[in-house]
Amino acid sequence: MTADTVARLALSAAFEPGRESIGQAVAEFGAVAVVDDLDAGRGSAVGLATLQDRWLSADWLAGARTERDQCADRGIRISVPGQGSWPTQLDDLGDRAPLALRIMGSVDLRTAAARSVAMVGARSATQYGQWVAEDMSAHLAVLGWSVISGGAFGIDAACHHGALSVGGVSIAVSAGGVDRAIPASHSSLFDRLYRAGVVVGEVPIGSHPNRHRFLIRNRVIAALSPAVVVVEAATRSGALSTAREALSMGRVVAAVPGPVTSSMSAGCHALIRDTDAVLVTSADEVIRLVMPVGQKRNRPEDLELTFGQSRLLDSVGASPRELGVLAGSLSAVEQEVAADAFLLERWGLIKRVSTGWVLDRTPRV
Amino acid sequence: MTADTVARLALSAAFEPGRESIGQAVAEFGAVAVVDDLDAGRGSAVGLATLQDRWLSADWLAGARTERDQCADRGIRISVPGQGSWPTQLDDLGDRAPLALRIMGSVDLRTAAARSVAMVGARSATQYGQWVAEDMSAHLAVLGWSVISGGAFGIDAACHHGALSVGGVSIAVSAGGVDRAIPASHSSLFDRLYRAGVVVGEVPIGSHPNRHRFLIRNRVIAALSPAVVVVEAATRSGALSTAREALSMGRVVAAVPGPVTSSMSAGCHALIRDTDAVLVTSADEVIRLVMPVGQKRNRPEDLELTFGQSRLLDSVGASPRELGVLAGSLSAVEQEVAADAFLLERWGLIKRVSTGWVLDRTPRV
Repeated sequence: MTADTVARLALSAAFEPGRESIGQAVAEFGAVAVVDDLDAGRGSAVGLATLQDRWLSADWLAGARTERDQCADRGIRISVPGQGSWPTQLDDLGDRAPLALRIMGSVDLRTAAARSVAMVGARSATQYGQWVAEDMSAHLAVLGWSVISGGAFGIDAACHHGALSVGGVSIAVSAGGVDRAIPASHSSLFDRLYRAGVVVGEVPIGSHPNRHRFLIRNRVIAALSPAVVVVEAATRSGALSTAREALSMGRVVAAVPGPVTSSMSAGCHALIRDTDAVLVTSADEVIRLVMPVGQKRNRPEDLELTFGQSRLLDSVGASPRELGVLAGSLSAVEQEVAADAFLLERWGLIKRVSTGWVLDRTPRV
Repeated sequence: MTADTVARLALSAAFEPGRESIGQAVAEFGAVAVVDDLDAGRGSAVGLATLQDRWLSADWLAGARTERDQCADRGIRISVPGQGSWPTQLDDLGDRAPLALRIMGSVDLRTAAARSVAMVGARSATQYGQWVAEDMSAHLAVLGWSVISGGAFGIDAACHHGALSVGGVSIAVSAGGVDRAIPASHSSLFDRLYRAGVVVGEVPIGSHPNRHRFLIRNRVIAALSPAVVVVEAATRSGALSTAREALSMGRVVAAVPGPVTSSMSAGCHALIRDTDAVLVTSADEVIRLVMPVGQKRNRPEDLELTFGQSRLLDSVGASPRELGVLAGSLSAVEQEVAADAFLLERWGLIKRVSTGWVLDRTPRV
């Protein structure tokens, strides 16, 4: 653990995330020099005169060392720019990039985020929106893509659940400390995320979120993934701020349409109508947007699926469906569907349970 | 009634509509010369050798004179290119333009079509689609736009009903004779169209439609209006052929989104995703697409509505809603809504009935 890391932990504890003046100072002078100047009351030397009083109000370096030790004790990783664990796509945020990340969970953030889709939406989502979020996330996960969201009620939770329910990977970007469930009632969701995914944050462990932190957190969701999908959003939804961040960084932005009679789809429709956001109706369409042309896109192992296999995979969801029902919905012969299901199962994309077939991404031995 | 008109009626009776070879011959030599050559067995002289036998199989000129007289007796107008009644936008179809139109109803086709929106969609529409089609058409009609559709089951019927129900104008482009309801069970809808709108066709009165005529008719719907809106369409719907025709003529094409779980919205989503079609959720958005920039667009009399009045007008529909309900849905003070309703009523856009407020475009004395 270098002095740079401790200095970054201290700065990210002392000040609210996303301040460009701090990012600028750290980029120009280095975190250690910035901390030294602030300690010596020379904040103005690094362009941080207005933050001088706040810095001197507590011993932030001691706090940072304590946080560092606690993280080590509890298996929480810390990542800063320059380390191999740092997701370099966050550098697209420029001076607004996080100073340091706290990472809690069982998967490697950088690897998982490299092949990910961020999916966000309204807290007060409709049944329709939650169904689409869960189904799309489950399909993305089965095809080897991790799903990034914000851990909140509604669409966020449906996205995490969808990916986790099929044995996939999900990433929550928290607006508070990574060691607490936010909201508190999502403690079992966060437990699942720690076990099968990862929770990442830019404020010290134990921290409460606040309104500013929720908003500023959205830029991290947008920067981590090559694509942001908005599932449901009212016209003034926070999910739209994530979409705007992503658009401004040149990320792919997509939105799921819904009934024009639903106010929860109005934000998605506005995105499609008024911005470069693309209309998407399935996980497959999302992947097509982010996959470089020419690259095989069907699954992690670069397996080409036939048209029939691809349609079958689209029809299998997180809840079991019987073979006859699947064949009916595909207007296909049951025997052919059975053959495709057998292959998809062998490839570890779906599995048979007592009441039918479900998506599955549990690693095979 | 000129010889040109009779010749065009005869050609449009003898041959199926939309044949480019006939359009070409008529454009080059004139309808009378083409008929003369066919009569003399010299079809090859006008590039119509393959149609010679069909022409000589009946006395099409005599039939045309009979149709002309019957139309005159029954108040059915005939319009051909060059006449003041001809909608010149049909010339955008080039050699595929109708040879002659039969027009039955109480309004002037050319005037009504000049300020119109074509709205089409699936026969097997959902309740959602029919509701949107009816509501959007009612709002278009109240704002002074006539609604063009195909008279069919589902979305088409909902469009006609929506416009007519508020006292607006609707135009049906028929695939058969204009004097018959197609489908036959739509006789009361066609009666309403004759009384308050117009039915237009390009085949002789009394004619049955056939599969070819339904498909080829779509180009006339696309050409008549500056914009085509697809409300619901499966991925292989005929409504998409209308949209493609419109796109190829440079018309504005728009599509209404719906749940991604509805196969009846899949065609609309594909249009938005894969073509220049624009996502629309309201009549207002449709009008904004076709109204030249800078032109006031709120109503025929070019009245500027306030934001509140505009929102109120959006909330009033073809079915009555009480003032309190309207105020609630707008999160507005009831007294302010009442004031706006009073003005909208005075301007002839909505009216009070026993159970609330409804859209209205019945002309005021």
